[in-house]
Amino acid sequence: MIAITMGDGNGVGPEIILKTFTEYHLDDYFVVIGDISCMEFCSEQLSISIPFHVIHSIKEAKAGVLNVWDMGLLSKSDIQPRMLSKKVGAAARDYVEFAARETLKGTFDAMVTLPVNKEAVRLSDPGFTGHTELIAEVCGQDDFTMMLSSDKLTVTHISTHVSMLQAVANVKKGRIVKVAELTNGALIGKKEGKPKIAVAGLNAHAGEGGAFGDEEIREIIPAVEECRKMGLEVSGPYPPDTIFLRASKGEFDAVICMYHDQGHIPMKVLDFAGGVNVTLGLKVVRTSVDHGTAYDIAYQGKADCRSFVEAYRFAQQMIQGKQLYKMNMT
Amino acid sequence: MIAITMGDGNGVGPEIILKTFTEYHLDDYFVVIGDISCMEFCSEQLSISIPFHVIHSIKEAKAGVLNVWDMGLLSKSDIQPRMLSKKVGAAARDYVEFAARETLKGTFDAMVTLPVNKEAVRLSDPGFTGHTELIAEVCGQDDFTMMLSSDKLTVTHISTHVSMLQAVANVKKGRIVKVAELTNGALIGKKEGKPKIAVAGLNAHAGEGGAFGDEEIREIIPAVEECRKMGLEVSGPYPPDTIFLRASKGEFDAVICMYHDQGHIPMKVLDFAGGVNVTLGLKVVRTSVDHGTAYDIAYQGKADCRSFVEAYRFAQQMIQGKQLYKMNMT
Repeated sequence: MIAITMGDGNGVGPEIILKTFTEYHLDDYFVVIGDISCMEFCSEQLSISIPFHVIHSIKEAKAGVLNVWDMGLLSKSDIQPRMLSKKVGAAARDYVEFAARETLKGTFDAMVTLPVNKEAVRLSDPGFTGHTELIAEVCGQDDFTMMLSSDKLTVTHISTHVSMLQAVANVKKGRIVKVAELTNGALIGKKEGKPKIAVAGLNAHAGEGGAFGDEEIREIIPAVEECRKMGLEVSGPYPPDTIFLRASKGEFDAVICMYHDQGHIPMKVLDFAGGVNVTLGLKVVRTSVDHGTAYDIAYQGKADCRSFVEAYRFAQQMIQGKQLYKMNMT
Repeated sequence: MIAITMGDGNGVGPEIILKTFTEYHLDDYFVVIGDISCMEFCSEQLSISIPFHVIHSIKEAKAGVLNVWDMGLLSKSDIQPRMLSKKVGAAARDYVEFAARETLKGTFDAMVTLPVNKEAVRLSDPGFTGHTELIAEVCGQDDFTMMLSSDKLTVTHISTHVSMLQAVANVKKGRIVKVAELTNGALIGKKEGKPKIAVAGLNAHAGEGGAFGDEEIREIIPAVEECRKMGLEVSGPYPPDTIFLRASKGEFDAVICMYHDQGHIPMKVLDFAGGVNVTLGLKVVRTSVDHGTAYDIAYQGKADCRSFVEAYRFAQQMIQGKQLYKMNMT
């Protein structure tokens, strides 16, 4: 059973759930963690007729209906499509925390998140950095990585939601080895043989032998050597401007990126609509769409469901992978 | 008249000139700055019959032949296809310096450069950073920017061949305004109205209001405001991971990038073969291919000429633009 967090009620989250439920047949058993008031309001606004089923316990979930675990945080009048709202932002945050706790307890096998608006969340929780960090906090973990994946390209990140200066400081051998292990673990079983993992440099031209920065020499090359000793098929560092085209043509299964935009820029240029955001290294399986609340188009029926559908399917695959792994271990 | 520097004689430069001369008809009047020994060797290796014409002065150049201004730096035995060579690297550097001096004097209207191998150049000139920096030195200028341009996307850079740490330090209001002026100047006349220029942020999500770095608040936003006061159609800073797709779909004519790979990654993902590298802000008009020496495929007839052809045409356009500008001024 998969939990889907509704996301910011003024953004595209609710309509993506409704449209997916009517247009795609993911499976009958998922549960939306959100507010029924908002889901109903959205179905009225978009004239989408939906068999809602309100639940307050997993046992109440049924097939053939849209199960909504009603958190009771919002009333219809709280919803103001396309507007930034403190109350709606806080509710979106709470759906994520609740879903993470329940998934950690085993109520759900995985969680798929729809977008929150960070600015809206920060009106009540100024220290909020993002979904991933919140879920990690619930899990009591800090050693995770964000993977973005599409048919064309898969990337993982040494760091994400930090300044570029901090990102440079985070380029450390131990962290790179850890991310390589997580990346390898997520890709194993997707095809025959060892996953082929490329490591991008931090600096222009991967530092050109130390001419433009020495992080490659000090941290990245030793990390790649360490990974190879561990038996992983890891290579690099490669010049960051050419490695993504090579990977997208099939030369590598994933590219480890040194900072947020190094991975996000090529992903979004190559495949804006179908990318999935997966958190690796946490005790809970979690995938996400790779877009934001898109206030500008919300409640107009224009939102693209593809990233959500891919995120859902990726979560299903990860659950199956985990089960296979457990079966092989017994 | 355009000067073409031959580039590293062990790389793809010579064959790109030969193939372009036979397959494309750029115009009859260009001059290769290089070594006739190498050009002849390449034509023998690839069995491409070429009407070479060796010159040592611009007055000797003729139409219908391949004019080679023979620098006399290499003999045939010096050429070892696909090998890194100190002597060949040093010669490649000297072609560039010579062409820059002659273009600055007015012998040529523009120069188009084929790739040098920096490692090879550094065997004799350890401080060599790149073509652009050498040409700037000849011009006695240090306020230039690298533009990459293709049909799909045009980007300019605040900095290029420096470490990421130095790139962060180079994000300064004055520099951003200067690059915006240069970018605007290069695009004027390409279509009706003012060029629409987007400025990318430095940090993830353009800093998200200061949460992930404050360079946007301290330097980039004030620079954008300054540009707008000057009457330029400049906006931003935009989140770096989504601005390139928007620009490639026509929303902007160019994106100003905060560091080398921010601009190079989307360019190379979107259009690997047809990109042109243009130096803006120098007294000489200079364009270049956006690829390297490609030793791995050199002297096998496999090199793709498209980037060179585009670079040549771009130089022609820039010369015409300059002439139009002068005509409008008188």
